Amino acid sequence: MLHLLNQHRTIRKYTEQPIKSELLNQLLEATCRTSNTGNMQAYSIIVTTDSTLKEQLSPAHFNQPMIKQAPVVLTFCADFNRFTKWCNQRNAEPGYDNFQSFMATAIDALIAAQTFCIAAESVGLGICYLGTTTYNAREIIDVLQLPKLVVPITTITVGYPVEMPDQTDRLPMKAVIHNEIYHDFSAIDIEELYTEKEKSEFYKQFVAENNKENLAQVFTDIRYSKKNNEFFSEKFLLVLKEQGFLK
Amino acid sequence: MLHLLNQHRTIRKYTEQPIKSELLNQLLEATCRTSNTGNMQAYSIIVTTDSTLKEQLSPAHFNQPMIKQAPVVLTFCADFNRFTKWCNQRNAEPGYDNFQSFMATAIDALIAAQTFCIAAESVGLGICYLGTTTYNAREIIDVLQLPKLVVPITTITVGYPVEMPDQTDRLPMKAVIHNEIYHDFSAIDIEELYTEKEKSEFYKQFVAENNKENLAQVFTDIRYSKKNNEFFSEKFLLVLKEQGFLK
Repeated sequence: MLHLLNQHRTIRKYTEQPIKSELLNQLLEATCRTSNTGNMQAYSIIVTTDSTLKEQLSPAHFNQPMIKQAPVVLTFCADFNRFTKWCNQRNAEPGYDNFQSFMATAIDALIAAQTFCIAAESVGLGICYLGTTTYNAREIIDVLQLPKLVVPITTITVGYPVEMPDQTDRLPMKAVIHNEIYHDFSAIDIEELYTEKEKSEFYKQFVAENNKENLAQVFTDIRYSKKNNEFFSEKFLLVLKEQGFLK
Repeated sequence: MLHLLNQHRTIRKYTEQPIKSELLNQLLEATCRTSNTGNMQAYSIIVTTDSTLKEQLSPAHFNQPMIKQAPVVLTFCADFNRFTKWCNQRNAEPGYDNFQSFMATAIDALIAAQTFCIAAESVGLGICYLGTTTYNAREIIDVLQLPKLVVPITTITVGYPVEMPDQTDRLPMKAVIHNEIYHDFSAIDIEELYTEKEKSEFYKQFVAENNKENLAQVFTDIRYSKKNNEFFSEKFLLVLKEQGFLK
């Protein structure tokens, strides 16, 4: 099991082999057994295989080819719609149209998403997370017809891998793990943590291809720029308001 | 592997057996191999075992006994602090003090959290998620000394189980899984989905013990009330502002 987790790679290219519906159901059943807030099961999973719908979802994911190529696309959603409807039918006053409830259901959607990923990898499937979901939640809501109190949080494409790519690098453990309390980083700590990464031929080439001075600038100027992050922040906050999770 | 996921239970009582640091490190290493946004590894895990610190964390988790009783408490945090420091040292303009960046790093923290949970369960440990983390993030920030651009998202207590409790019930799969697009629920659908749960002796007793008319009212009036949700929404939004993720 630890071996499986240690072998994790993101898989972006899938063979044409479909995922049998019996297997997919087994994976989804195991997923639904996972931890969730108060056993409210306040999240939902949209399983999309129809090629027309995948075509419609594609622009929301900036036309990354995985959406159209993967046999199955899963959209994991924060969802207090069903639970609220149940409360309304039971003379119980629901109070889930707020940001704390959004956090609880978003947490549950993500716990389910990762449970699905590990289940899928354990049977030889490959997965890819698409971070574009919170960028273009509005467009995904329209395609998947998500009602109020439902917001897409992440998308996973899944299928049989064409190949096993090399594993990506990781920073030294002390970049992520803090013992007892948070130990903030000095300038020297930062140098130490990033030295190996920055020295690697892989990233040197990546920096050169992007015409930047260094790796950090590839992130700040190209991949995750302040301007884009601020634009998509406003857009996602508006979605939370429109879907009823924020006043 | 699917068997392991299908056997999941939340474990709230732990034996006195400590978790060997070598094992804990193996679990954390497997966790750090998991998917994350742009391989920025923008999240952090605070590993707390010190009894004084656990005592200090306890009120933030409404004194749920797991915090003091579990050998290890893990606080998973959204974290753009380290990445931002790196950018600043590289003449690169960071733009991660916004809500979209918060979502990206919160997603990563949760993917890591669930990876850790499954890793832990695979070696015979038991886990419990504490939803109190987003209620009292401010107090946790103070105890764990989290700097700006770091926000706790969820907490996991982990240890060897005293016993395996019964599994909790789940709604029929169609409550959570939607084929192709979202299929909203009619009043009849809701009745069907909740009938079995509401009829069970377990929940009938639960309703009686709480002096409510029905199960939904236990949630809306006692466990997750509108008033509390709204109070903790304001509190958490203020934390996001104070920590630098929201204007």
